[in-house]
Amino acid sequence: MRERMRGFKELIGVEEALEKLRNAITRRITDSERVSLLSAIGRICGEDLHAPQDYPPYDRSAVDGYAVIAEDTFGASPMNPIKLKVIAKLEAGAEVSELPEIRRGESVEISTGAPIPRGATAVIPVEDVEKVGGGIEIRGQVYPGQNISRRGEDFKLGEIILRKGELIRPWHIGVAASFGITELTVLRRPKVAILSTGDELAEMGEEPGAGHIYNSTKPMLASALSVLGCDIIDLGISRDDVNKISEKIAEGVRKGDLVIVTGGTSIGVRDLVPEAISKIGEVIVHGLAIRPGKPAGFGVVGEKPVFMLSGFPVAALIQFRVLVTPAIEYLLGCKFDPCPRVRGRLTRRVASPPGIRSFVRVRVLRTASGELVVEPLRLTGSGMLSTLTRGNGLLIVPEELEGYEEGDDVEVELLSPIIESEVNKR
Amino acid sequence: MRERMRGFKELIGVEEALEKLRNAITRRITDSERVSLLSAIGRICGEDLHAPQDYPPYDRSAVDGYAVIAEDTFGASPMNPIKLKVIAKLEAGAEVSELPEIRRGESVEISTGAPIPRGATAVIPVEDVEKVGGGIEIRGQVYPGQNISRRGEDFKLGEIILRKGELIRPWHIGVAASFGITELTVLRRPKVAILSTGDELAEMGEEPGAGHIYNSTKPMLASALSVLGCDIIDLGISRDDVNKISEKIAEGVRKGDLVIVTGGTSIGVRDLVPEAISKIGEVIVHGLAIRPGKPAGFGVVGEKPVFMLSGFPVAALIQFRVLVTPAIEYLLGCKFDPCPRVRGRLTRRVASPPGIRSFVRVRVLRTASGELVVEPLRLTGSGMLSTLTRGNGLLIVPEELEGYEEGDDVEVELLSPIIESEVNKR
Repeated sequence: MRERMRGFKELIGVEEALEKLRNAITRRITDSERVSLLSAIGRICGEDLHAPQDYPPYDRSAVDGYAVIAEDTFGASPMNPIKLKVIAKLEAGAEVSELPEIRRGESVEISTGAPIPRGATAVIPVEDVEKVGGGIEIRGQVYPGQNISRRGEDFKLGEIILRKGELIRPWHIGVAASFGITELTVLRRPKVAILSTGDELAEMGEEPGAGHIYNSTKPMLASALSVLGCDIIDLGISRDDVNKISEKIAEGVRKGDLVIVTGGTSIGVRDLVPEAISKIGEVIVHGLAIRPGKPAGFGVVGEKPVFMLSGFPVAALIQFRVLVTPAIEYLLGCKFDPCPRVRGRLTRRVASPPGIRSFVRVRVLRTASGELVVEPLRLTGSGMLSTLTRGNGLLIVPEELEGYEEGDDVEVELLSPIIESEVNKR
Repeated sequence: MRERMRGFKELIGVEEALEKLRNAITRRITDSERVSLLSAIGRICGEDLHAPQDYPPYDRSAVDGYAVIAEDTFGASPMNPIKLKVIAKLEAGAEVSELPEIRRGESVEISTGAPIPRGATAVIPVEDVEKVGGGIEIRGQVYPGQNISRRGEDFKLGEIILRKGELIRPWHIGVAASFGITELTVLRRPKVAILSTGDELAEMGEEPGAGHIYNSTKPMLASALSVLGCDIIDLGISRDDVNKISEKIAEGVRKGDLVIVTGGTSIGVRDLVPEAISKIGEVIVHGLAIRPGKPAGFGVVGEKPVFMLSGFPVAALIQFRVLVTPAIEYLLGCKFDPCPRVRGRLTRRVASPPGIRSFVRVRVLRTASGELVVEPLRLTGSGMLSTLTRGNGLLIVPEELEGYEEGDDVEVELLSPIIESEVNKR
C-alpha cells in the first residue's frame, strides 16, 4: 500500500516502517542497575526474578475460622449443628515449629494467614460457627482442603515472579516485598538526544529575537519522553546548515541511545536533515504514509537510530507515537501500556486518502443521555495544538479505508478522559 | 442492591459508597506551587491558564509554497499552467513589520509558519508549482484564505489553554512553551499516611522475628500511590491495640490529607480498626459489596478520610482501585486516565453472587489466529498475588449479573499489555 508524493520517492506504510525500524535497532539496552524496591516502580525489570522460597511458605488458613478435621463436619447444618472443642488459638505469624495438633472432635481457632495446626484438614469459616460454652457449634460442612492455602500454591521455589523486560507494577513490588526482597535490578533509563533545527527558533526561557518563534516541539517531546522513563540529552538548536546538523547528530549518537531531530525535513524549501544523516550514516525511511506527519522518517548512524520529526508540534507528536514509542520498546525489550480506547458515534464525516493512516483529532464526550459521541475537530495545518488541548482523542483511519461516515460507530484512542456533559457531572 | 453478611450490618454497593465518599471529602487540596515547565508533566494544573496573546500571533502559511493573490490562480491546471513572478522569499520567523507586498501576477516563496506577505490571499503548495526561469508556473487553483493559518485561529488572547484540575500532558507543555511560558502552577502532591496493623508483620528490610511475615501490602500501596503522584507518610506498623491504632490514625490525620489503615478489619477474630476510628471520628462505610475485598470501608476523622483496607495484598489492591483512587481524584478535583479495556471470549464460566461487584483476575491473550481470549485464573483467597503477576486483567462482573458463561464476549480492564501467543511474536 504505497502512495507517491511529489518530492518523496515514495511514502512507506507504518507497518513496513516499523519492520525496518525493528531491524535497524541492533543494540538493545542491557546495562542494568540495582534500585530500592519502592523506586523500582515504573522501571523495566533488568533480569528474571525467581521466587527464593515457596509461597506461602507453609499451609495456612485462607479465612478467619476454625481449623478442623473435615470428617467432623460432615452432616452439620443450621438445623443439625455439631459441637467441637476448641483447644488452641492461632494468629497469622504463629511459630510454625510449635503448632498444636488436633484430634477428632477438636478444633483450633485460626486467623486468615495463620499456619494450619497438625492433624487439621480444613478450615470452617467463622460465619458458619457459633461459640457455645467452652466450644463451638458448627452449622456447615467443609471438604478436606477447603479454605487452606497450600505451601507453594502462590509461588513455587525458583519460579519466575518478574520477567526481564516487564514494566514493574505495584503488585510486583508487593510480591517482591512478601519474599523480603528490598532491591530490584532494572534496566538503565534510555538516553535520548534531541536536536532542534530551524533558524527561526528561540529556546525556552530565551528572549526571542525579532521574527523568532519559541521552540515548543522540544519541551513537548522531552516531556513525552520523560513519561516513558527516558533521560534527555539536549543538543540545543542547530541553524539550518547541513554540516552543523551532522556534527550535532554525531554528538547525539555518541552520548545517547537514540537521537531525535526536529524540523528541516519537509520537501520544499529545505531538506537538510536527511542530507545531514546521509553524510555520516544511512537514511532508511523518509516519507511515512501518515497524516499529519508525512515528512517523517529515520536513519541509522553508528548503529543507533536517528529520527526525523516535524518541527510542528502536532505532527511531531503523531510521528513520536508512531515511530519513537515503539523504538523505545525495542531498545528496552518491553511493552508499554496500550492507550485506552472507546467506541462512539461519529458526528461528522471524516475523509482520508487511500493508503494513508490518518490521525484525526477528536472530542469524545458523553451526552446527557449517556451516549458516547465522537466529534472531529477542525483541522488546518499540523501546527494546531489547540486540536489536542480542546480534544481528548485520536480517531485512526486505517490505510485501507477512505474515511468514516457520519453516524458510524468508530473506535478512538483516548488521550485524556471522556468529557462528561454537564448533566452527568457532579 | 444490598446483601447481608454475618458480622457486617450490611454490605454497601460501590456506587452508594462512592457517593458517601464524595460527600465526606469536604477539604479539597487547593494549595499550589510553581514548577518549571518540564517538571509539570503529570502534575495537576493548579489554576486556569489563559493565552497571553493570539496564536498564531499573525497570519501565516500552513504549507511550504508560494503566497499568491487567489484570483491569479483561477483556471490554472496541469494542462493550463499560469506564470507568476517571484519577488521575495519568506522563512518561518521572518520579521512581521517588514513584510513585502505583492501585486497581481506576483508571488512570494514561503515556508510553513512564515508570515503571509501583504496583499497575498492564499498560498499554493510547492507540489502544485514548477520553477521556470526567474518565476513559477502554477498548475492548480487556490481559493482565498486557502493554506493560511489566521492570527488567533489556534488560541485567542485570554482563552483558557489549560484548566485547573487537568492532568498536565506533553501537549500542554507544548502549548505553554509556544507562548514562552516557562513555569506552571500545579496543585501540591496529596500526602497519604499509611498505617499497617497486625502483630504478625515485619517491616521491609527488617529481620523478621519467629513467626513474622513481611509486610507486602504497604510497599505495594505506596508504589500505587506514587504512580498517582502522592507523597507517602509512613506511620509504621501498629500492634493490634485499639488505643495505639487510634493514636496513629490521629497522627496520620494531622500530617496527611488522607489516611490508609491496612489489616484488622475483617469480622471475626479482630475488628479493631473500625473501633479505633470510632473513638476519634466516625465510620461511614464498613463492608463493601465487592469480591474480593468485602471488609473494606472508610470513616472521617477531623474532616479527613480514613480508609480501612485489607492486610492481604490482592484484596487491598482491589479496594484501593475502588475507593482510594476516586478519593484522590475528589481531593484534587481531577480525573486520572481510565484503564485500557479490551473485549475477548471467556474460556470458562465465572460466577458472582448477586448484588456483589466481582473483580475476577484473568489472563487476556491473543491466540495464533488473532482472537482475544480471556482466561479466568484460579482464585483461592485474597492473598494470591500470583493471580496478578500471572494475569494481566480484571474482569468486572457487575452487581446485577450472577456471572458470565463460557464463550461470552466480555470486557476486561487491562492491567498490563495483552499476552501475545508465541506465533504472533517476533
